Amino acid sequence: MGVVSELFTANRVAVVGATPREGSIGRAITRNLLEDYEGEVVPVNPNYDEVLGIPAVGDVDDADADLAVVVVPPSIVIDAIESCGEAGVRNVVVITAGFGEAGAEGAQRERRLQEIAEEYELNLVGPNSLGIMSTPTGMNATFGPENAIPGGLSFMSQSGAFITAVLDWANDQGIGFKDVVSLGNKAVLDETDFLRTWGDDEETDVVIGYLEGIEEGREFIDTAREVTNDTPVVLVKSGRTSAGAQAASSHTGTLAGSDRAYEAGLDQAGVLRAESVQELFDYAGVLAGQPLPETEDVAVITNAGGPGVMATDAIGDSDLSMASFTTETTDRLKESMPEEANIHNPVDIIGDADIDRFREALEIVLADDNVGSALVLSAPTAVLSFDDLAEAAADVQSDTGLPIATCLMGGDDARAAGRQLQEYGIPSYFDPARAVSSLDALARFRRITEREYETPTEFDVDRERAREILGSVLDRDDNRLGVEAMGLLDAYGIPIPDGDIVDSPDEAESVARGIEGPVVMKIVSPDILHKSDIGGVAVGVDDADVADTYEDLITRARNYQPDADLLGVQVQEMVDLEDGIETIVGMNRDPQFGPLLMFGLGGIFVEVLEDTAFRVAPVAKSEAREMTEEVKTAPLLRGARGRDPVDVDGVVETVQRLSQLVTDFPAILELDINPLVALPEATGDADEAQQTAGVTAVDIALTVDPEQLEAEHND
Amino acid sequence: MGVVSELFTANRVAVVGATPREGSIGRAITRNLLEDYEGEVVPVNPNYDEVLGIPAVGDVDDADADLAVVVVPPSIVIDAIESCGEAGVRNVVVITAGFGEAGAEGAQRERRLQEIAEEYELNLVGPNSLGIMSTPTGMNATFGPENAIPGGLSFMSQSGAFITAVLDWANDQGIGFKDVVSLGNKAVLDETDFLRTWGDDEETDVVIGYLEGIEEGREFIDTAREVTNDTPVVLVKSGRTSAGAQAASSHTGTLAGSDRAYEAGLDQAGVLRAESVQELFDYAGVLAGQPLPETEDVAVITNAGGPGVMATDAIGDSDLSMASFTTETTDRLKESMPEEANIHNPVDIIGDADIDRFREALEIVLADDNVGSALVLSAPTAVLSFDDLAEAAADVQSDTGLPIATCLMGGDDARAAGRQLQEYGIPSYFDPARAVSSLDALARFRRITEREYETPTEFDVDRERAREILGSVLDRDDNRLGVEAMGLLDAYGIPIPDGDIVDSPDEAESVARGIEGPVVMKIVSPDILHKSDIGGVAVGVDDADVADTYEDLITRARNYQPDADLLGVQVQEMVDLEDGIETIVGMNRDPQFGPLLMFGLGGIFVEVLEDTAFRVAPVAKSEAREMTEEVKTAPLLRGARGRDPVDVDGVVETVQRLSQLVTDFPAILELDINPLVALPEATGDADEAQQTAGVTAVDIALTVDPEQLEAEHND
Repeated sequence: MGVVSELFTANRVAVVGATPREGSIGRAITRNLLEDYEGEVVPVNPNYDEVLGIPAVGDVDDADADLAVVVVPPSIVIDAIESCGEAGVRNVVVITAGFGEAGAEGAQRERRLQEIAEEYELNLVGPNSLGIMSTPTGMNATFGPENAIPGGLSFMSQSGAFITAVLDWANDQGIGFKDVVSLGNKAVLDETDFLRTWGDDEETDVVIGYLEGIEEGREFIDTAREVTNDTPVVLVKSGRTSAGAQAASSHTGTLAGSDRAYEAGLDQAGVLRAESVQELFDYAGVLAGQPLPETEDVAVITNAGGPGVMATDAIGDSDLSMASFTTETTDRLKESMPEEANIHNPVDIIGDADIDRFREALEIVLADDNVGSALVLSAPTAVLSFDDLAEAAADVQSDTGLPIATCLMGGDDARAAGRQLQEYGIPSYFDPARAVSSLDALARFRRITEREYETPTEFDVDRERAREILGSVLDRDDNRLGVEAMGLLDAYGIPIPDGDIVDSPDEAESVARGIEGPVVMKIVSPDILHKSDIGGVAVGVDDADVADTYEDLITRARNYQPDADLLGVQVQEMVDLEDGIETIVGMNRDPQFGPLLMFGLGGIFVEVLEDTAFRVAPVAKSEAREMTEEVKTAPLLRGARGRDPVDVDGVVETVQRLSQLVTDFPAILELDINPLVALPEATGDADEAQQTAGVTAVDIALTVDPEQLEAEHND
Repeated sequence: MGVVSELFTANRVAVVGATPREGSIGRAITRNLLEDYEGEVVPVNPNYDEVLGIPAVGDVDDADADLAVVVVPPSIVIDAIESCGEAGVRNVVVITAGFGEAGAEGAQRERRLQEIAEEYELNLVGPNSLGIMSTPTGMNATFGPENAIPGGLSFMSQSGAFITAVLDWANDQGIGFKDVVSLGNKAVLDETDFLRTWGDDEETDVVIGYLEGIEEGREFIDTAREVTNDTPVVLVKSGRTSAGAQAASSHTGTLAGSDRAYEAGLDQAGVLRAESVQELFDYAGVLAGQPLPETEDVAVITNAGGPGVMATDAIGDSDLSMASFTTETTDRLKESMPEEANIHNPVDIIGDADIDRFREALEIVLADDNVGSALVLSAPTAVLSFDDLAEAAADVQSDTGLPIATCLMGGDDARAAGRQLQEYGIPSYFDPARAVSSLDALARFRRITEREYETPTEFDVDRERAREILGSVLDRDDNRLGVEAMGLLDAYGIPIPDGDIVDSPDEAESVARGIEGPVVMKIVSPDILHKSDIGGVAVGVDDADVADTYEDLITRARNYQPDADLLGVQVQEMVDLEDGIETIVGMNRDPQFGPLLMFGLGGIFVEVLEDTAFRVAPVAKSEAREMTEEVKTAPLLRGARGRDPVDVDGVVETVQRLSQLVTDFPAILELDINPLVALPEATGDADEAQQTAGVTAVDIALTVDPEQLEAEHND
């Protein structure tokens, strides 16, 4: 793969399959390219001497192009691309459809395409793409929409029609773009490649996108974390719901991961996720046009009380807050505003406010250090023109350098003034809720730029022992492991109760003697899932009863299922659940994002109330801690309702260690530590023998991919 | 109060305080009335012979008007309105400000206004109103905006500026109104009066409003339930958040009730609540223009895959669902659509779809009985005009009578076609999420029209005994009652444990002997709140220990607080919490809606997870049952995780009985039954002695308003 940005800076574009035939895609692309493009256009088609008045060549080799747009029929597209490679054209956009989205034959063709791209190190967009655009050179290498207006948004979309729709709308709205790419089937270049490219591009103010799937979740997260240090990324990820995911899958063949993984992954990546087209462009507009606020505190200035209340509500619903003014500010407002005005936030300068009063109020509140941004609301009145208000807002913004959003609540006049504000990069809406949502996006992006991404802790673990325990599934019919795999946790430093799996009464007695107090004994068999139901679990067994209990458990198991694979009986230290809190730490592997970690409180909290937190592994300590903080039951861990707080540090470390385990072994498909008992903090301090004092993993269940495991073994 | 609708049908309007003075409100109103109004306008002002060319009279008595708009200064407004009353003018709009919103003097003036209105039975709007409009007669009796376009929306607003803003915008959008009223301070006529009036008005298709408070919650609910049988009501209730409520309060002097009460009350009333201006008009537009769907199942037809996925997601997020087509439908689609089309929902008729294909697909899916409504999505293409699509949608709708919403995803062309669709009442948006939200509003309103409001059950209770128990606070310094008021629950048929409050060891023994098994003993004192903390609760006391325990408890109480008011010791049957589930049933009295009932599971579920359900009392059985169903923990009551289900019927009946209690006694300000233990169902069946078997109220806490109590006593 070459330098992706060269796609957009090409000086000479070959249209492979250009034709003058009316209604053809080859003609549409050639025509679009001839519209504004500063570079050269070379039609490639052995059947024509010229296309649309431009001399054509018979072979791409004769085009001397640095970008080829390929529109030949599917059957000859492979040859055409191979010719591009041989001719030294490194940038290729494949418009032709009939690949991965079109059955087995298409998929085979797409694999061939990937091979050729790799062989020739091609920057390949598509196949099944609408094309690409880049406004600095006026290049419109698509068969769809008219050219974009120049601007600061770079836009990728997995739906070509969505590009057409957005550009048609954006051109009428005066919204401008830097680069646009229709990703198509993403056979070679995907969202991460364009993200990286635009992150390095000084002319791109905001990266926006419509995605139905992300190919390589972890790579995307890592790339986005770098990009979003200074460039905002706003994405619509559709296929959120199960019905939507199914629709996306039949649309582009995208294998949708779980939306929980996307939600966690996009958040960890620093991406702002938009739920609708309106949000996408509201966020993009404000992020492109406005500076970032220093604080979350907003000053609202209005000439109408009702809209001021609506804005205050919307701020209450958001992560923003209403600024509290200093005494100096309220004094200044009191001096200069009429008596009936409300000089506290929301500042109501009342219906007879003229432009001078508006401007003065705005200047006063923005001079207050407690104010991070301002929201200006105006209903139409006889004494104020929206145009004047737009100019005043732009002036004050340019003087103060602070972010401003506006609501001009009126008809055509308001719309015209809104367009004027847009020229200054200041957003304008009718609805106060939308203006607040945009200011909120600014504040959220500021917090993203301030994030520091820690490196995940690398614990000293016994990886070889873990590998052996996982390897035990290779000898079995089943790819699930239960309590017999507790050693896996031990190998990764996660505290487990004392105990062992035994296969005789004597051995049981010997293990029990080594454990203080009574023990718990359980049948160990992959074939018996609900052990309690058949009396396969004995709790509080004294040393004297251990041998008898062993026989009893084995008998029960044999009676229940004579042919069950009996691995023995587990003899385990009793963990006092009364004093502790049961939590669940789990993982399942997402097709896009890889290992998705889950944390929640045990029992009904996870199962009935679905009170859970997710992160894509590997996680740093701060991310593991966030998981324990963002569940609604978090206060229980920290000692709500008169209880002692439990060892949250131990829970956090367990999450980190599990993260390391599932990252080290891609063969682990699912894993649940259920319960992980978190004991009151005092207990933790006393017991220094445990690596993470104060928590104990009581049971484990996991599913392993044997093929992957063998592959790992052979590494 | 007269017939409110006469405000809007007046034939002759007196403008009391009309003046020709430039910039005056009196001039603005006269000018607005002279614009389009079919009736007569009579300026009333002793200082002028004519105003704006119309002969003026010196006194309202000479105007012979059926509506007076009063704009005289605050100091003479009372006299002016009295003159209206004497002159027989029954309909009055008071524009003048300086009443309840303006300090003590203003509040005093507002009370006088109310007295006069009552004396003369005036339909009085305001004071502090922008005025009223009614398009059938062209009457614009406001000093604000230009006249509304005629249409089916009747609109009330507590913010005059919001009316100005909305009309300015709506006129440019072509959105029409029947009546408009600026409610002002609502001294006489309030939202409920206009709701009732417009509910009876055949020309009003949808009632919409912006409210910051509701005056009489229960009356509003009862009125809205009748109106929403056939007329949709969509409201923005602002002041939702605490900051917003504070802003609303300083704006209009509205005393905000809790938003929980509004949320519950508006829902019980059948009102659709809009969160933003955009939602308000999206909902109003679709409800005014579209028929109601028979089912929640939506067919999506699109010429672009991506937008189809977005729409599917939005449907997944809503209460709607994606329609499953019959085989006949998919067969017909297969026959008539191209091979590449997706004939399952969302139906993708692909980018080269012309108008005939679109129309045919739409006809096919709407002929399917599984389809309740259709969503038509289109990106711009070379082979389809948005105008043609608009016409086709309107045709198919008129043929089928089924609701349709559209997304024309483009710029000016799409906007123009959208206006065309609006003429047919078909909503059109860019964003699929908005279109889905509108179809969802239609389906929600259909469900509202199908609601049957039960009458609350009237249980046979001992009201006199309850009155006596409540009356016990009148002898005390404190207005709170605790466990000593358990009899209140007993009087209303809510099961309580056996037991009594005693004041000697002998009495304690005697009570304990009457109870099977060991007992619980508690200090009873309004001055000792946390009894457990001082060892003031003894659990599992055997008969033999009862006397000693009595002495012990009394000693502890005396030691802890020598001057505490000791009411005795409660000796109570032990309720086995192990087998049951602790719930909380409570009430607090909202300033607008009255008694607000609360239900949730005890302990952390209410306190930490805030998993609660609210209803305004009195509630019918179905509403009480909904409360037990809508908490997230509902599955626990019904036997999740292998437990026996508990007696939900008993919980429901307790909620109903509490509803009756707090409705009977407005003096009860707050009441908590905490815990109400719900026992497994078997227990309930066995014990027929209890009126609601299977639940037991273990403790009670309530706060009483002594003044209100005395007033009730004197009734």
